Amino acid sequence: MIFFQSDYSQGAHPKVMEALASTNLEHTVGYGVDEHCVHAAKLVKELIGIEDCDVHMMVGGTPCNVTVIAAALKPYEAVVAARTGHIYSHETGGVEGTGHRIITMPGVDGKMTPALIDAAFVEYEDEHTVLPRMVYISQPTEIGTIYSKAEVEAISEKCKERNMLLYIDGARLGSALTCKENDLSIKELARLSDAFYIGGTKNGALFGEALVIRNPIIGENFRFMIKRQCNMMAKGRLMGVQFEALLEGGENSIYFEMARHANELAEKLRNGLLSMGVEFYSKSPTNQIFPILPRPVVDRLKRGFAFQEWAPEKDGMVPIRLVTGWGSNEGEVDAFLAHVKIMLEMPVG
Amino acid sequence: MIFFQSDYSQGAHPKVMEALASTNLEHTVGYGVDEHCVHAAKLVKELIGIEDCDVHMMVGGTPCNVTVIAAALKPYEAVVAARTGHIYSHETGGVEGTGHRIITMPGVDGKMTPALIDAAFVEYEDEHTVLPRMVYISQPTEIGTIYSKAEVEAISEKCKERNMLLYIDGARLGSALTCKENDLSIKELARLSDAFYIGGTKNGALFGEALVIRNPIIGENFRFMIKRQCNMMAKGRLMGVQFEALLEGGENSIYFEMARHANELAEKLRNGLLSMGVEFYSKSPTNQIFPILPRPVVDRLKRGFAFQEWAPEKDGMVPIRLVTGWGSNEGEVDAFLAHVKIMLEMPVG
Amino acid sequence: MIFFQSDYSQGAHPKVMEALASTNLEHTVGYGVDEHCVHAAKLVKELIGIEDCDVHMMVGGTPCNVTVIAAALKPYEAVVAARTGHIYSHETGGVEGTGHRIITMPGVDGKMTPALIDAAFVEYEDEHTVLPRMVYISQPTEIGTIYSKAEVEAISEKCKERNMLLYIDGARLGSALTCKENDLSIKELARLSDAFYIGGTKNGALFGEALVIRNPIIGENFRFMIKRQCNMMAKGRLMGVQFEALLEGGENSIYFEMARHANELAEKLRNGLLSMGVEFYSKSPTNQIFPILPRPVVDRLKRGFAFQEWAPEKDGMVPIRLVTGWGSNEGEVDAFLAHVKIMLEMPVG
Amino acid sequence: MIFFQSDYSQGAHPKVMEALASTNLEHTVGYGVDEHCVHAAKLVKELIGIEDCDVHMMVGGTPCNVTVIAAALKPYEAVVAARTGHIYSHETGGVEGTGHRIITMPGVDGKMTPALIDAAFVEYEDEHTVLPRMVYISQPTEIGTIYSKAEVEAISEKCKERNMLLYIDGARLGSALTCKENDLSIKELARLSDAFYIGGTKNGALFGEALVIRNPIIGENFRFMIKRQCNMMAKGRLMGVQFEALLEGGENSIYFEMARHANELAEKLRNGLLSMGVEFYSKSPTNQIFPILPRPVVDRLKRGFAFQEWAPEKDGMVPIRLVTGWGSNEGEVDAFLAHVKIMLEMPVG
Repeated sequence: MIFFQSDYSQGAHPKVMEALASTNLEHTVGYGVDEHCVHAAKLVKELIGIEDCDVHMMVGGTPCNVTVIAAALKPYEAVVAARTGHIYSHETGGVEGTGHRIITMPGVDGKMTPALIDAAFVEYEDEHTVLPRMVYISQPTEIGTIYSKAEVEAISEKCKERNMLLYIDGARLGSALTCKENDLSIKELARLSDAFYIGGTKNGALFGEALVIRNPIIGENFRFMIKRQCNMMAKGRLMGVQFEALLEGGENSIYFEMARHANELAEKLRNGLLSMGVEFYSKSPTNQIFPILPRPVVDRLKRGFAFQEWAPEKDGMVPIRLVTGWGSNEGEVDAFLAHVKIMLEMPVG
Repeated sequence: MIFFQSDYSQGAHPKVMEALASTNLEHTVGYGVDEHCVHAAKLVKELIGIEDCDVHMMVGGTPCNVTVIAAALKPYEAVVAARTGHIYSHETGGVEGTGHRIITMPGVDGKMTPALIDAAFVEYEDEHTVLPRMVYISQPTEIGTIYSKAEVEAISEKCKERNMLLYIDGARLGSALTCKENDLSIKELARLSDAFYIGGTKNGALFGEALVIRNPIIGENFRFMIKRQCNMMAKGRLMGVQFEALLEGGENSIYFEMARHANELAEKLRNGLLSMGVEFYSKSPTNQIFPILPRPVVDRLKRGFAFQEWAPEKDGMVPIRLVTGWGSNEGEVDAFLAHVKIMLEMPVG
Repeated sequence: MIFFQSDYSQGAHPKVMEALASTNLEHTVGYGVDEHCVHAAKLVKELIGIEDCDVHMMVGGTPCNVTVIAAALKPYEAVVAARTGHIYSHETGGVEGTGHRIITMPGVDGKMTPALIDAAFVEYEDEHTVLPRMVYISQPTEIGTIYSKAEVEAISEKCKERNMLLYIDGARLGSALTCKENDLSIKELARLSDAFYIGGTKNGALFGEALVIRNPIIGENFRFMIKRQCNMMAKGRLMGVQFEALLEGGENSIYFEMARHANELAEKLRNGLLSMGVEFYSKSPTNQIFPILPRPVVDRLKRGFAFQEWAPEKDGMVPIRLVTGWGSNEGEVDAFLAHVKIMLEMPVG
Repeated sequence: MIFFQSDYSQGAHPKVMEALASTNLEHTVGYGVDEHCVHAAKLVKELIGIEDCDVHMMVGGTPCNVTVIAAALKPYEAVVAARTGHIYSHETGGVEGTGHRIITMPGVDGKMTPALIDAAFVEYEDEHTVLPRMVYISQPTEIGTIYSKAEVEAISEKCKERNMLLYIDGARLGSALTCKENDLSIKELARLSDAFYIGGTKNGALFGEALVIRNPIIGENFRFMIKRQCNMMAKGRLMGVQFEALLEGGENSIYFEMARHANELAEKLRNGLLSMGVEFYSKSPTNQIFPILPRPVVDRLKRGFAFQEWAPEKDGMVPIRLVTGWGSNEGEVDAFLAHVKIMLEMPVG
C-alpha cells in the first residue's frame, strides 16, 4: 500500500528521532520552560526576525487554534473564517466549546478576503449581535491554495481598519513557504499577523507546533490559558527538542528541506495528472492536491493506494485528496501516475 | 409619534395588568411552582390538547431558546437554523456561550427545509465534525413568513429520519396561528415538535413565554437548567398570572384576539401599500411586514412614525419593518398609509 | 397562613404597581435604554453620589451576579467567596457555567475577611492554578449578618493590594442600609466597590436590580454581556419604571421606608424570641432571622406559618429562617410570638 | 544535580524509545484508531480482565480528567473531590472551563470517604443547587497515600447509593499497584470504577495515558468529546506504540517493573530519613514522599538536588516533596541521605 493519505501518517524525520533519543535521559523541568524549549523559541525568533514576541510550544494544531481564540476574545466576540477553515470544518466545535462563535463566510478558493470581512459586519448591529473581532486564515488553506503577499497585506490592513486581530494557522506553513508560487516570506507573514504558528506535526515532527504571539491582547498570561485548555504537556521539552532539530540552520534547516521535497512530489503528481487531462477541485501549489477522477478509477486505485475522497461524487466524478509528506518518494509518485494512466486509457467495465 | 417599531413597545393588555394588580398582595411560593403557574400550565395543556408534557414559564424568548438548546444537546452536538434565525442573528452568541455551534443554512423565505437539513449532513463526517442534532425554526420566521402544515410535517419527518430534535420558537406564535394563510393548528404544531413556546412578550404580556417540552431528552431536570442558565425568576408567579389572563378561554382568549387584531392591521397596511405599487422584502402574512420604500420617503416618515430600517439600502430603496401590536389601532394605520401615499405621489426634492 | 417564607412571596409595593399601570400604554424603545431606565439610573447616581459609573437594570440577582463575574474575569481567573455565598450556595453553578471557578472560604459569620482572601492565595501557585481575581461579598450576607464600614474598607484595601476586584451583592441592600447596627452608607459602599447592585426583587419590586459598575474592566461593552448571558429584557422599561417609583425621594424613598419597616418587624420577632430564651443560628440585625427551635414546635408552627428550615436538625433543635418583607405587619409578628410562647411553655407530647 | 523533582523530568524507558524508533516509518491512519492503539487497548483489557469496556489513548492526565468529567456530567451536575485533588489544585480551572463545579471536601489523608460524599449532599437542596453526580479520586493521591481495597469498595458502594459515577485518576497508578501496602488489584479497581486511567507520563512513557471507560454514560461518542476538547492527537499511534511497549507481558511488563523500582528507592529514602528522626507531611508508601526538614537544610540541599517545596514553612520547618522515577538509582538515594545526615548532625550557622 502506498500512502497519500496524509502528511502525518508516518513518524518523524530521522534527525528528530535522533534528537529525542540523544536527550532522552536528561532531566529537565517540565511544562515547556526547559532549555530546549527556550532554545527552540530562539531559533523561531531568528527565523522570523522578530525578538519582541512570545513563542509557545503547543501539542497540536487544534489546541493551538482554540487556545489562541479563547485567549483573544471576550465572551461576546467572534472569529470570522471561511466555512472550509479548519476551525469550522474539522475541530468538532472546539471554538464554540470555549463560548465563541465562528462567523463563516463562503471563501474564495478557500480564502478570506477584505470584502468577506466587510460582509461579516453587515450582519453586525449592536449588543444584539456578536462582535467580529478576529480573522482566522490558514496558509496554505484546507484546499491547498495559498495567499499572496498582497492578499495577506490587504487582509491585515482591513483588520486594522476594523479593529480586528489576524491569526494565521500554519499547520502546513512549510509547504506554503517553499512552494513555487509563494511570494510571502515567513518574516513578512509574522509581521502581518497578531499570532501564527509554524506547524510541526504535518512536516516531520512526531507532534508539536511553534506558536508565535506578537499581540499582548492574545499573549497576556498565555501559559494560564494553555493549562486551562488542558494543553500543557508535562514533558514539554519534547517539543523543544523536536523544533531544535527541525529549525537548526534556519532557512536551510530540514524543516524547509522536507517541505520542499513534499511540494516537488506533489507538483510531479499534479503535472502528471494534468498531462492526462485530469481536472482539479482546487488550484493547489502545495503538498495537497485534489484531482477529480472517475468513480471506477478511484475505486481501483484504492486497492494499492491510501488517500481520501474529499467531496461528494458528482456525475460519476470524485474529487480525491493526495498528500505528499517528508517520507514520500518519487517511486510512489511514478507508481500512482502509471496506474492512473492505464486506468484512464483502458475501458472500464 | 406613531409606533410601528415593535410589538413590545407598550406594556401589557389591560386584563393582564388587572390580573397582576388583583393578585399583587397574595403570598405564594417563589420560582414558578405556585398555583398560578400550575393553572397557567393547565390552560396551555388544554389549548394544545396534550397532557403528557412539561410546561415552564420562561422570562423571555432568548432565555427560552438558549436553555432548551443547552438542555437538549451534548457538548459536541449542534443546532441547525436559517442564518436569519433569531438564535443566530439576534442573541449575541448566547447559544455558543453554552458551548454549542449553530450550523447556519441560507434559508428559503427565512425558512428551513428538509433539503437544508440534509445539507447540514453533507458537512458532517465523524468525530472531527459537530453532530447536527436539533433543528430550530420559528413560526412565524424573523421575516414574518409562516410554515404551512405540510412544511412542518416534512421537517418533522426529516428530523425523525436524521435522529434530530425539532424545536419551534413561537415568539410571535399567536400571529402565525391567527393569520389567514395559516393551516397549522397549535395542536398539530405541538405534536410535530419536541419543544416549542407560546410567546407572551410580543403579544400582550409584560414579559413571559410558556415553554412546552414533550421530549424528556430536553425536559429532564429542566428546572435545574433554568436556574443554571440564570433564568429563574423569584416571583415566578408573575408569569403564571399573566398567562392565566392571556389564555383564559382558550381559542377565544385575549391571546388570540390580540394576535388577530395585530394581523388585521398589518394586513390593512400591506394591502394599502400594495395598492400604491410598493414592493415587499418578504411575503409576510403576519404582524410584521417589510415594505421597500425610497430613501427620501423613509426619512420623512421617520418624523412622525417609529419603525426600523431592516436591510441595507439598495439603489435608493430601503426595506423597512412595520410591526403592529395589540395596542395598535386603525387610525395609526390610516395615518401611515396617507403619509406614504402623499409622499409617493409628490415629487421629492 | 402567615408568611415569613421570603421577602419575595408577594407582588410589589402599591406605588410600584401604580407606576407600572400609569405608564402601561406608553410606547418606548426596548431593551432598557428608554427614558424610564435613564431616569432611574439618574436617581441611582444621585443616591450614591457618583456620576462616573454605569447603571444597568437587571432582571434578577443571579443574572446580575453571573453576568458581572463573566464580564470581569478572564477564563483562568476565579472569584473568591464565602461557601455560604449565594453564588456558590444557590445559583446551580451559574458562575461555573460561564467557565469560572468560585474559590470558597469557610466565612466568619457568613463574611469574607482580608485573612480569608490571603488564604485563597496560599492555594495559588502559577499557571497550574486559577488566579484569584475578584472577591464576592453580600451586604447583608445569606445569614443576615452585615459588614461594618471598617470591615468593607479592610476588604477593599486587601483587594487593591492583591489586584482584585470587589463586587458586592446587594439583593437585600436596603435591609442592611436601614438596620440599626449599620455604619456603612450606600455612598461609602459604592466607593469601596468595583461594582454592586441595589436589590429590588426582595424589597418591593416585582423584579429588577439596579447594577452599578464603576470599574471599566467590568463595564466595557456590558450590554453585550447582558444579552449574551440571555438577561436582556425586551420591555426593559419595566425595571426603569419600578426603580423610579422605588427611589424617588432618595433617602426618603419608599425603598428605604420598606426596608426599615421589614427590619423593625424582624427586630420585634428577634427580641420577642430572645425574651423567651430562644437561641439563634446567626446574629442577624436585618430582615432575615434564624431562631433555633425544638422540632415539635417547628412542626406545629408549620400549620399556621410559612417559613423555611434552614439547616439540619441537631439534637432535636432546628434552625429556621423567618423573613419579613414590605408587606409584613405587626399582627403577623405578634401572632407568631404568641404561638411560640405557648408552645415553648407547654409540655410537648 | 540529582533530580527528585518529578517522575516526568526524564524522557521514556529505553524500550519505549526503541518501539517508537522501530515503528517510525510505518504509515498508519491517524487519530488513535491504528493497529498499535488497537493492540494496546487489547493489552489493557487483558490486564484488567474486562473485555466490555472502551480504551482510549489520551495525551495527558489533565486532558483525560477534564474530558471524562465533561462527557459524564450534564450542565448542572458537579464532581466531588478532595480539595487537594489534582482537578482542583493543579488544572487551572479546566473542569470549570467545561461548565462544571468541583465540590471540594477537606479530605482525610488526601482521600475521599463515604462520609465526605454524604457531606456534599448536605449542601444539595434542589434545582437551586448543583447536583453531585461524580466522585473523583486518585490512586495514589496527590500526597502519595493510597486507598485500601475496603476504602474504594465503600466509596463505590456509596456512589451506587447516591446515583453517582466513580472516576479514578491513575496518573501514578503503577506506583500504587506495586507498593507494599497495596491490597487493591487493578482488576478490582477497574470493576469498582466507572472509568479510570493507567498513567504513562509519570511511569516511563514520553506521554500518554490509557483511559478505560466501563460506563456508557461516560463513554457514548467519547471520541467526539476527545476532539471537541482539543485532545485528539494526529499521530495517535505514538501512544499505542508506547503502551504496547509498557504493557507487553502484563503483570511482568516494564510498566510494573519501573513502578516497583521507583517505589523501592522511595522506600529507601523514607526509611533512611525516618532513621534520622525526620517527620513526614503524609504517610506515603508510593514514589512520592514528603519529609519535613529544617529551612537551612532545605536550602543547602538545593545546591545539589532538585526537588519541590510542597507546603508553606512553619516554625522553621519545610515540607518538601521527593519523587523517584524509573530512571532514579540507588546512588542518588544514598547521596541524598548522606547529605541530609551530615546536615542534621552538624550545627547550622
